[in-house]
Amino acid sequence: MPTELPKKHLFAVPDGLIYLDGNSLGPLPKSVPGHVNKMMLDEWGIQLIRGWNEADWMGQPARVGNLIAPLIGAPMNTVVMGDTLSIKVYQAVSAALSMRQERRVILSDTGNFPTDLYMVEGLIDLLGDAYELRLVEPDAVGEAINDEVAVVLLTQVDYRTGRLHDMETITATAHDAGAVMVWDLAHSAGALRVDIAGSKAEFAVGCTYKYLNGGPGAPAFIYVRPDLVDEVKPVLSGWLGHASPFAFDLTYQAAPSIERMRVGTPPVVQLSALQSALQVWDGVDMNDVRAKSIALSELFITEMATHCPDLRLLSPRDPLLRGSQVSFCFEHGFCAMQALIDRGVIGDFRAPDVMRFGITPLYLDEDDIIRAAKILHEVLSKNLWKDPKYQQKTRVT
Amino acid sequence: MPTELPKKHLFAVPDGLIYLDGNSLGPLPKSVPGHVNKMMLDEWGIQLIRGWNEADWMGQPARVGNLIAPLIGAPMNTVVMGDTLSIKVYQAVSAALSMRQERRVILSDTGNFPTDLYMVEGLIDLLGDAYELRLVEPDAVGEAINDEVAVVLLTQVDYRTGRLHDMETITATAHDAGAVMVWDLAHSAGALRVDIAGSKAEFAVGCTYKYLNGGPGAPAFIYVRPDLVDEVKPVLSGWLGHASPFAFDLTYQAAPSIERMRVGTPPVVQLSALQSALQVWDGVDMNDVRAKSIALSELFITEMATHCPDLRLLSPRDPLLRGSQVSFCFEHGFCAMQALIDRGVIGDFRAPDVMRFGITPLYLDEDDIIRAAKILHEVLSKNLWKDPKYQQKTRVT
Repeated sequence: MPTELPKKHLFAVPDGLIYLDGNSLGPLPKSVPGHVNKMMLDEWGIQLIRGWNEADWMGQPARVGNLIAPLIGAPMNTVVMGDTLSIKVYQAVSAALSMRQERRVILSDTGNFPTDLYMVEGLIDLLGDAYELRLVEPDAVGEAINDEVAVVLLTQVDYRTGRLHDMETITATAHDAGAVMVWDLAHSAGALRVDIAGSKAEFAVGCTYKYLNGGPGAPAFIYVRPDLVDEVKPVLSGWLGHASPFAFDLTYQAAPSIERMRVGTPPVVQLSALQSALQVWDGVDMNDVRAKSIALSELFITEMATHCPDLRLLSPRDPLLRGSQVSFCFEHGFCAMQALIDRGVIGDFRAPDVMRFGITPLYLDEDDIIRAAKILHEVLSKNLWKDPKYQQKTRVT
Repeated sequence: MPTELPKKHLFAVPDGLIYLDGNSLGPLPKSVPGHVNKMMLDEWGIQLIRGWNEADWMGQPARVGNLIAPLIGAPMNTVVMGDTLSIKVYQAVSAALSMRQERRVILSDTGNFPTDLYMVEGLIDLLGDAYELRLVEPDAVGEAINDEVAVVLLTQVDYRTGRLHDMETITATAHDAGAVMVWDLAHSAGALRVDIAGSKAEFAVGCTYKYLNGGPGAPAFIYVRPDLVDEVKPVLSGWLGHASPFAFDLTYQAAPSIERMRVGTPPVVQLSALQSALQVWDGVDMNDVRAKSIALSELFITEMATHCPDLRLLSPRDPLLRGSQVSFCFEHGFCAMQALIDRGVIGDFRAPDVMRFGITPLYLDEDDIIRAAKILHEVLSKNLWKDPKYQQKTRVT
């Protein structure tokens, strides 16, 4: 009998649809539309400007941060919400660089999500030619960490392959070499048990629209190790990171807490959606999520190996080296994914040939996996992907 | 007889409330909750990841930018949405500096909203001591523009006093001196007729939760003069400003359009709210808005001068030198504002002693102004503000 975590009923996934793309955009938790509607009518509509006090919109970035904290192993009051993941990467890396002013290298890997690299490029462009973004293959990160490296910036789970970095070991290696560690948890938060405090990393950042189901454009989070927060330089020094925003001083003074990583006015409507979405984690043990994710992933990989030999497993075969997604290479992956979506199984595609499937146990069970495998087998064995209509579609995400 | 613009019925202002704080947070347009609810249920809920294509969430920042453009005198495809105003200031100033690499001074005034100054402080902190943020009194800006100045950064309407800078004259002075002009239109967009293209300014930025009623935390906008867009350096070089975001290249290449000023994943829910809110501008002539704003402001000032002599007008007396707000100094302004709010008239307070009233003709008429003036007169003449309960309230916004 299929088993399931008891949370599937909390999501509004359309009947009959098997959604294997929660690693890109989590589905709508049923509570969200009503919560947001009420926020708009009762808070914005009636409290108007008073909502900043009465509904404590002003405290929302820290309040929601405290809902994220236990999901990534962070203590209370060490996480704050806002902006996008790109912006939070910029904040973390620029702050990290200022903690190692004698060094010039930011080390990352070629499996990092490109925006992390682009944001560092932009930062280096400001700082001058002496700085270097050094990219190595994911496997080579450990040996590339040396005493030239100011900052190690890595996404724990590779967006394309699902390969999982060993957070504790790499962080320790970085620290042994005197470097500052920045983890991007985009594909980790809500997918794995993360112990960011235990890793002793200085910074972590992440997004909330994937495994945390906050909705399209949900705000990002940033964590700063609490013993460092008072010395961290918030390069994007906006008024809501000021110690006294409403004193309207002409000069900046950073807040003496994680609040200094706030920048501008918080996205209150999106934060309300996220806050409601995070309710689904009540009573969920991340170890159970991880165990179920591994069981479902193993099942999917086994089914594929048996029935779809044309797909080459791109993700690591060892589940302990893998995040909560399974990726396969297939030359005609783009068309095959379109054919699959047409038949009610949504995964996604990443250039040049990667079919990605997010395994999200909050709302997926064995039955879903077996049905998805069966439909994918049909698409491939009957060459349904050769239908000309799948050649023409343009791809955005 | 009171006259009114025909838009009051489109807003959900509570019965009996007189809302004079639309310069801080615009009220809820009635269309918004239904629009956002439908977006969440039909797009996020049903289309899921496909919403990026099918509902064109990906095109939303430019599409909504094209709704803002006519309100600030910008051509189509020169405005894009995203992030917060603080972030957009950082983008504009850093891009502007890179256009004048031989100069080191960013000139602004002491009436600028502090976050603009703080963001420049943070930028200078990265760039090094050679750079200087030079602040002068608002009246002294013209004469302070010289050939040391790389960038002139000004908010057109002073958030505290309502004083209005002459955009055409100052921009021309900046250009004569070889400086790049950045206008912050936070208190201009939706309040005044702005002709940003006519001014020839290189950059403009602004927020959408004040006179544009996009809701708390609505995203910001940025305008780049179209002849410059291909050479503008997007320092915050996020993946959605890349020429081909979904090629997932390891190196950044800026999009050949205003899209390069995008950074991370757009706040789709907030953009949907804003898009719906902007419908209220259909058929509105900004000259009518301005004429009505002046008429209502003059009425309020006259009423105050007659009935509330303890209030000292802080805003310029000449309406042509004033934005769409009226501010008064009163030693006990904080308490008086609390007393006023308790009696159904919402304005706001800015330290140390400023009572601010936003004049927003889309949903205010003469009758509102006269009633507000009467209630304020009562608060002052009967010393209602001395009630101890108004001494204790804490102020956030």
